[in-house]
Amino acid sequence: MPQKFVPAIVIARLPLYLRTLGFLAREDKRVTSSQELAERLGLTPAQIRKDLSYFGEFGKQGTGYDIAFLEKQLRQILKIDRVWEVFLVGVGDLGRALAHYRGFQENGFRLIALFDNAPSKIGTSIGAIAIQDVKEMPRVVREKKLQIAILAVPADAAQSVADELVRAGVRAILNYAPVTLNVPPKVKVYSIEPVAGLQGMTYYL
Amino acid sequence: MPQKFVPAIVIARLPLYLRTLGFLAREDKRVTSSQELAERLGLTPAQIRKDLSYFGEFGKQGTGYDIAFLEKQLRQILKIDRVWEVFLVGVGDLGRALAHYRGFQENGFRLIALFDNAPSKIGTSIGAIAIQDVKEMPRVVREKKLQIAILAVPADAAQSVADELVRAGVRAILNYAPVTLNVPPKVKVYSIEPVAGLQGMTYYL
Repeated sequence: MPQKFVPAIVIARLPLYLRTLGFLAREDKRVTSSQELAERLGLTPAQIRKDLSYFGEFGKQGTGYDIAFLEKQLRQILKIDRVWEVFLVGVGDLGRALAHYRGFQENGFRLIALFDNAPSKIGTSIGAIAIQDVKEMPRVVREKKLQIAILAVPADAAQSVADELVRAGVRAILNYAPVTLNVPPKVKVYSIEPVAGLQGMTYYL
Repeated sequence: MPQKFVPAIVIARLPLYLRTLGFLAREDKRVTSSQELAERLGLTPAQIRKDLSYFGEFGKQGTGYDIAFLEKQLRQILKIDRVWEVFLVGVGDLGRALAHYRGFQENGFRLIALFDNAPSKIGTSIGAIAIQDVKEMPRVVREKKLQIAILAVPADAAQSVADELVRAGVRAILNYAPVTLNVPPKVKVYSIEPVAGLQGMTYYL
């Protein structure tokens, strides 16, 4: 498939298409349409057709999309047709819940290391994974060639830990700290923003 | 302030401006500029000036923005110059972490009720808050006139619980379930999407 520039907003929607295709497949459907996807996702059919057209021709006029085929294609495009090893920095209440969260594993993201700076936590385990000293993080990241970090440290530590992640070679950060991280353009950040999400909804109440 | 239509994307950025102003204030700054805000937020100064211009004139040419004044204005615009009572449905691992999360309280969202459907959980407490049977939810929501729900139930239950929330009068849902919720236009949904976030980043690796 030729690589052409695809807007970030389009890339961000592909996982939602994939998830919806998964739901449809579990409902024993084999074929879907841009209309059906649009209804499930609160988008327009034209938007969905346009988004998918960046990557090729996946549907046939009049017969719609083969669900299994489109799922497979989207997995390839998003590079999730493989297992990615991820690690977590910051094992507080939230980090602990994330370490137990099955959604990562079920979707091809295998949590393989946990880091914290609290002596009381270092050396203890969650499930089969030991919590290591965050000072070991750069070495582990380089040795295991890890590219994806989950950041769940307090706000005031987040930027300095992010800087260390970037120096260690991390290319993608799932950020749970309530700060906007400054990273070089080659590093992607996806921020989880519950408070900002709530504050953006109260405007409408 | 006259009400005019403001794009949702602009509203979504205001909480990030507010958060950044908070950081600057804690650094003992009194005045900031669109340039400084832009650097912290990875936006352009022009974008920030344009966003704020929907709501009035907050800065003076050459002197920038008074941080305390702009914070106060943004809180009023977002209607977070008050405390909002929120409740949580689904007290699994994630729900438990959310019930302990101080970020909601610190930002004016007071968690006042927890609901679950598991007999083993109903009647137990997290902190000072008892877990109630989810069947009681509609009554409690109506009695206390609650408008904001945090939804942390499993994916396969999320839409039916969301339907109940809407029927009970909820107007805003912070959705942690990995599904796209179908709700009427008057109801706002903000979805927390860690897996979709990861999947959208691997594209670039």
